[in-house]
Amino acid sequence: MGIVVQKFGGTSVANAERLMNVARIVTDKYKEGNSMVVVVSAQGDTTDDLIDKAMEINPHPSKREMDMLLSTGEQISISLLAMAIEKLGFPVISLTGWQAGFLTNSAHSQARIRNVHKERIEKELDQRKIVIVAGFQGVNRYDDITTLGRGGSDTSAVALAAVLRADLCQIYTDVDGVYTADPRKVPNARKLKEITFDEMLELATLGAQVLNNRSVEMAKKYNVNLEVLSSLEKKPGTVVKEVAKVEKMLIKGVAKDCNVARISVMGVPDVPGVAYKIFASLSSKNIDIDIILQSIGRDNTKDISFTVSSSNKDAAMEVCEVFKDTMGAMDVLCDDNVAKVSVVGAGMQSHPGVAASMFGALAEANINIRMISTSEIKISVLIDKNKSDEAVRAIHDAFIH
Amino acid sequence: MGIVVQKFGGTSVANAERLMNVARIVTDKYKEGNSMVVVVSAQGDTTDDLIDKAMEINPHPSKREMDMLLSTGEQISISLLAMAIEKLGFPVISLTGWQAGFLTNSAHSQARIRNVHKERIEKELDQRKIVIVAGFQGVNRYDDITTLGRGGSDTSAVALAAVLRADLCQIYTDVDGVYTADPRKVPNARKLKEITFDEMLELATLGAQVLNNRSVEMAKKYNVNLEVLSSLEKKPGTVVKEVAKVEKMLIKGVAKDCNVARISVMGVPDVPGVAYKIFASLSSKNIDIDIILQSIGRDNTKDISFTVSSSNKDAAMEVCEVFKDTMGAMDVLCDDNVAKVSVVGAGMQSHPGVAASMFGALAEANINIRMISTSEIKISVLIDKNKSDEAVRAIHDAFIH
Repeated sequence: MGIVVQKFGGTSVANAERLMNVARIVTDKYKEGNSMVVVVSAQGDTTDDLIDKAMEINPHPSKREMDMLLSTGEQISISLLAMAIEKLGFPVISLTGWQAGFLTNSAHSQARIRNVHKERIEKELDQRKIVIVAGFQGVNRYDDITTLGRGGSDTSAVALAAVLRADLCQIYTDVDGVYTADPRKVPNARKLKEITFDEMLELATLGAQVLNNRSVEMAKKYNVNLEVLSSLEKKPGTVVKEVAKVEKMLIKGVAKDCNVARISVMGVPDVPGVAYKIFASLSSKNIDIDIILQSIGRDNTKDISFTVSSSNKDAAMEVCEVFKDTMGAMDVLCDDNVAKVSVVGAGMQSHPGVAASMFGALAEANINIRMISTSEIKISVLIDKNKSDEAVRAIHDAFIH
Repeated sequence: MGIVVQKFGGTSVANAERLMNVARIVTDKYKEGNSMVVVVSAQGDTTDDLIDKAMEINPHPSKREMDMLLSTGEQISISLLAMAIEKLGFPVISLTGWQAGFLTNSAHSQARIRNVHKERIEKELDQRKIVIVAGFQGVNRYDDITTLGRGGSDTSAVALAAVLRADLCQIYTDVDGVYTADPRKVPNARKLKEITFDEMLELATLGAQVLNNRSVEMAKKYNVNLEVLSSLEKKPGTVVKEVAKVEKMLIKGVAKDCNVARISVMGVPDVPGVAYKIFASLSSKNIDIDIILQSIGRDNTKDISFTVSSSNKDAAMEVCEVFKDTMGAMDVLCDDNVAKVSVVGAGMQSHPGVAASMFGALAEANINIRMISTSEIKISVLIDKNKSDEAVRAIHDAFIH
């Protein structure tokens, strides 16, 4: 008995039948005596349908109005889930992001949660109501509706679990846990029973797409007891926590990310502060940078390359073009025909053989490496996009038998 | 130059093309120098689609969750209209009911506006923004979303015009004004240039469906300068005001209402206070009563009949069944195979010939009258539903040539 936060993604609430299924999962946990807070995403394709409606009218709508539009998706699913739970005869109330107290900054379409004013939710829980909360959304201090960006519902759920000091935060998805690689692509991928926050963070960042990375960061910060499991099948999922039991495997997973673009600023004058200027401009536009690589060019110049997510490609190119004109770089190139493939595992740094094995596996599969980046617990390489699945399989086979 | 409130119904914003058309109507008025506040309904069939989604899950959802669901309809249309106006290059902002300051009571699905906190709208108008407001919705004092019921967007528009002391409130619909009868049913129906609030009120109440009656009541109370006109054709509409120019016609219109049911409580004991008990119970359930008729029954009993809108039929029957059991009435009957047909005109009371002409026209068409009700400016009769169009034509022909 305690407070349990559950989160259900768009696939889990896509139609009436699945909503009834979710209603049963929620009320089963409620019947055990738990206080239930349930975060839901928009149904299946709702968000994409709304985007289509907008594009038909204006291909470049303001982000503020886009958030106003898209936030209706979760408002529809919370009310429908509440109705499904009413039908089962349990006390329930749905709350939008602003009603649930989600205060964010004003970065429309990718807002950050500043605070969750939990009074309303606690009042409803005290009355033994099941509380359904719209994920992905909040309001800024001007009462304008904001959205948290893709995967934002995970973040909503973890933030709620943190402020409510929930005993458990269950993320229900259409997969039944975290795998060593995408099981649809790598047949012998294995499900992990446990994984650390740091490892999960690398996997999430790298596009494993099970959990949004901001939600894992937040779970780590507030030490939220996370579990990833399937809404469609009843079986144990993967537990994400601070210290995981040591498993024999050194490598926890192989992930790929195809939503990536490489931008290269060629022939930058080799003087102090140029890198700062590029990355400060990018940062001021809220463009997150991933891998950075600087190499020596000719004639007192250098080349600076970095990767961004595909959705930020155009904005990043714009910044670099301005930089080129003002700082006198020679050229700006963009290549989005690339994918990032990574291996993740906590003990990796003390095992230098990992990098060698990874590069060896790629060489054997005749896949060219275009950039390399390493951290304490991961090694990433940038390769041609059309070889990415093959690369994941080759690396997975090299490490996980 | 002044403040203009415009309201566009669901048909006017049904698709991208019509939204662009509305955007042009709005910005044309803005370019004349006016401060623009625009109230919109949900697009075309959105509300019905949302109701279908709900019914699939739970045929008896709570009204609170239904309001949560349905209010997304207007939120979608305000953001899309804002995007359309952005595309034309004008400053614009959309506001939901709660953002626009609509505070209502807690009668979910048929809430009443208590107050409009206009600060946010005035702030945006001061910045010369076109303000798009979601009609039909507000919040109660617990921050729960409420809806105003059918036609509520008209009420939203008039309430805004009242609190903002707007110079003009234009209600755009799919007809181009107020007619002496439904022009789709009565070929020689004539459009009125002007009509008084009281006459309009009777026509609205009677189902002329051009303007919601609560909106006309409110316009009369706050003396809002109303105009009804078409969003699809550019031509003058009908102006609704306190005193209209005297036109030759005594009768302003003939209206019918098919969403009506007659309930009869038979054999009620003839003692003081019984009528009070029935109608107090009905009122406590928020059931509006229209025509009431009491007749002498046999053996110290009386029969009480009244009409309610079809949507309240079941709730009213429930109240009456309870009354029958506790007060000892003989029977409760319900007939929803009826329609109410009415003539409306301000000078009618001083012209006793009007009733006679109306009844004569019905007699000549061989239509039986089942109930009669009169007020200062209207005469209504209850007749068989399948004769209603015929009755409207017969009465119209008798008065308007």
